[in-house]
Amino acid sequence: MVKLKGNAVIGQSGGPTCVINRSLVAAVEELKKSSLITGIFGARHGVEGILKEEFIDLKKQSRTTLARVVETPGAALGSTRKRPREGDDDCVKIFEVFRKYDVRYFFYIGGGDSAQTANTISALARSQGYDFRTFHIPKTIDNDLIGSDHTPGYATAARFVACAFMGDDLDNRSLKGVKVNVVMGRRAGYLTAASVLGKLDEESGPHLVYFPERRFDIDRFIDDVDAVFGRLGRCVVAVSEGIATGPEDKDLIVTQAGEMLLKESVRMEMPRDAFGHPQLSGTGILADYLVYRVRRLLEPKYEALKKKFRIRGDTFGYLQRSFPGVLSEVDAREAAQVGKLAVQFALSSDIDGSVVIQRKSGPRYAVEITYAPLAEVARGEAEMPDHFINQAGNYVTQAFIDYARPLVGRLPKIGLIQKSLVPKR
Amino acid sequence: MVKLKGNAVIGQSGGPTCVINRSLVAAVEELKKSSLITGIFGARHGVEGILKEEFIDLKKQSRTTLARVVETPGAALGSTRKRPREGDDDCVKIFEVFRKYDVRYFFYIGGGDSAQTANTISALARSQGYDFRTFHIPKTIDNDLIGSDHTPGYATAARFVACAFMGDDLDNRSLKGVKVNVVMGRRAGYLTAASVLGKLDEESGPHLVYFPERRFDIDRFIDDVDAVFGRLGRCVVAVSEGIATGPEDKDLIVTQAGEMLLKESVRMEMPRDAFGHPQLSGTGILADYLVYRVRRLLEPKYEALKKKFRIRGDTFGYLQRSFPGVLSEVDAREAAQVGKLAVQFALSSDIDGSVVIQRKSGPRYAVEITYAPLAEVARGEAEMPDHFINQAGNYVTQAFIDYARPLVGRLPKIGLIQKSLVPKR
Repeated sequence: MVKLKGNAVIGQSGGPTCVINRSLVAAVEELKKSSLITGIFGARHGVEGILKEEFIDLKKQSRTTLARVVETPGAALGSTRKRPREGDDDCVKIFEVFRKYDVRYFFYIGGGDSAQTANTISALARSQGYDFRTFHIPKTIDNDLIGSDHTPGYATAARFVACAFMGDDLDNRSLKGVKVNVVMGRRAGYLTAASVLGKLDEESGPHLVYFPERRFDIDRFIDDVDAVFGRLGRCVVAVSEGIATGPEDKDLIVTQAGEMLLKESVRMEMPRDAFGHPQLSGTGILADYLVYRVRRLLEPKYEALKKKFRIRGDTFGYLQRSFPGVLSEVDAREAAQVGKLAVQFALSSDIDGSVVIQRKSGPRYAVEITYAPLAEVARGEAEMPDHFINQAGNYVTQAFIDYARPLVGRLPKIGLIQKSLVPKR
Repeated sequence: MVKLKGNAVIGQSGGPTCVINRSLVAAVEELKKSSLITGIFGARHGVEGILKEEFIDLKKQSRTTLARVVETPGAALGSTRKRPREGDDDCVKIFEVFRKYDVRYFFYIGGGDSAQTANTISALARSQGYDFRTFHIPKTIDNDLIGSDHTPGYATAARFVACAFMGDDLDNRSLKGVKVNVVMGRRAGYLTAASVLGKLDEESGPHLVYFPERRFDIDRFIDDVDAVFGRLGRCVVAVSEGIATGPEDKDLIVTQAGEMLLKESVRMEMPRDAFGHPQLSGTGILADYLVYRVRRLLEPKYEALKKKFRIRGDTFGYLQRSFPGVLSEVDAREAAQVGKLAVQFALSSDIDGSVVIQRKSGPRYAVEITYAPLAEVARGEAEMPDHFINQAGNYVTQAFIDYARPLVGRLPKIGLIQKSLVPKR
């Protein structure tokens, strides 16, 4: 194996998480140990920083700074939605910059898009005969990377969502009604599924959970809510922001919500994200629409029965990936490990790859962290497996709970009052 | 003083908090010590439970249960928005029930409305010559009770909001843009003001804060956002759900949002809460409307300058009052103290009252917990004092920070990377 000596660039890409900086700092600490690495350059806002030649000198960061950054949510170097494609001018430009700065190692922390970027750059290096190592360091709260049991970032976001539903269910027990909570996840329902992990008993919410992996039927949804509300006088629902009636953007329920609430009233096109898809996060429109649809049908029904019908909707939004101080210990540990191991793999082998986490079978939670070819992880996104969703498509299975519980860790201990009633006089 | 012997009823009312059960359990523990108290009855869903004679036997709760309930957000007995008024049939009925069950002590945990209910019942008891003690135990995340420096429930909700903005600002540094976050608080801006408490430096968000105490001007708001975005390339905004152009319901910005987004498109009246006011929480409509208004003006402006203009809105919703595990230690302690002292006051004096927290002057945080006449606390709600809001009405003052910081406690330690750039080649 050729001992490749030169500078290393590290960058962060995509939606930030609460543990993405743990991967960054662990990689930096590991890079510092190697005599092959001359400079450690942090690209500001991922590939944008490479293109603009905006690098932070990561060797100049004090121990105190790095120790603080470890604990800090968000992407310390800045992130980006930019995704250069093979054949782009940007790819050529990135290469010019890497040559100019004698960059021989590139580490990119991110999701599937970032694996794609790393893969494109890896291919370009090979085609140009430039000696170069690239490693993708996995990160995504969506938990949808191919080849991994789970992805750093997910477990902490899942813990936040589980805690959020614990609290919200207690709030809903206090003041009864229907509550619809929208959870992040465009294509994968993992984060929405985590809503069930803090349930105290059979009567606890969420009572219904809807995933992007199953076609959403608004009439069945309203029937489901009606059934739970009729039985318990309340109903807490977890809905993935990506619920849809089909695979196209136009099939997203949020698109229908936008058509109704924005296009008709303010003659505005549905806001779109950096990739031109309908914007799912950072708007309450899906929750408001679902609340509107349920209220329109069920409020008159229950009012006719002289029963109060209260309904509210919340969208958990960016707090799911950024709220500080609510950490999965497993996630914190593994986020550091994937950063450290990416560097070790890059320095000790002559392949480019993506770090993957595999779970060992057995009664106790244990993982093996290894790597896969970049092209494999860059292939696309994984959905939740079928056996994590129930037959009716409105709840998780025990298999999901067994899968997710060790990741999220012990949740806050709470309890309900015992219903020993005073005899009526 | 007459030694009044009989049963005690305790109830919870209004929006729940994360520490309302600490007041409940502390009161129960204190009631258990007294030989004057025969039974301790928990009213299910406040006055609703009294009217339906649904009482939980709180003497029958195990130590383990009570220890768990202490840690649990939400109202363990159930809460209510029902507010009986003097002269109501309900008030007469409550009295019949109290007589029938030999209730001689009534403790009501809640906000200004609950103080009013307690006051009404106290007056009724006096007018009927029924020997009876009532105490109001303060609780509200709005922090708007008359006569108190602050109210149990506020500090924990404020801590959540401060943490939420810490994380959201880091997210916004990662992927720059405008972010509008709507915070609870119909008439008082205390909770929205808490958004600033976790700021790391001058460049940290929130950069702008808007309160119900100041008339909201949408044009000035957009100008403010434009100025910050022009300077930093990003802008994080905290907006109280109660912002308005005047004192009436029709003046609420959420009403204008509802007119535009609901009335025009789905021909729906603005959803209303239990009191017939426009519903502020449990909908994302205010954030979506503000985002729409800002985007319509500023997106074309920045696009003409070839600058990307990204804007998102979140509504923090019910998580602010229910998220478990994020606790202000001061709040936890004081919530228990007001419960315990309410019982001590009721048992040792022959007046009815409301527990109030007063802050002692001096360099270290210290309080005195005493009581005020019920009628005084029942008078209405307090707004934030003028000197907590800056001249422009778009930020807090240092006086607010000095007031709030000891309540919220130490926030998670985070830090930014140092901007030591690699010299360009």
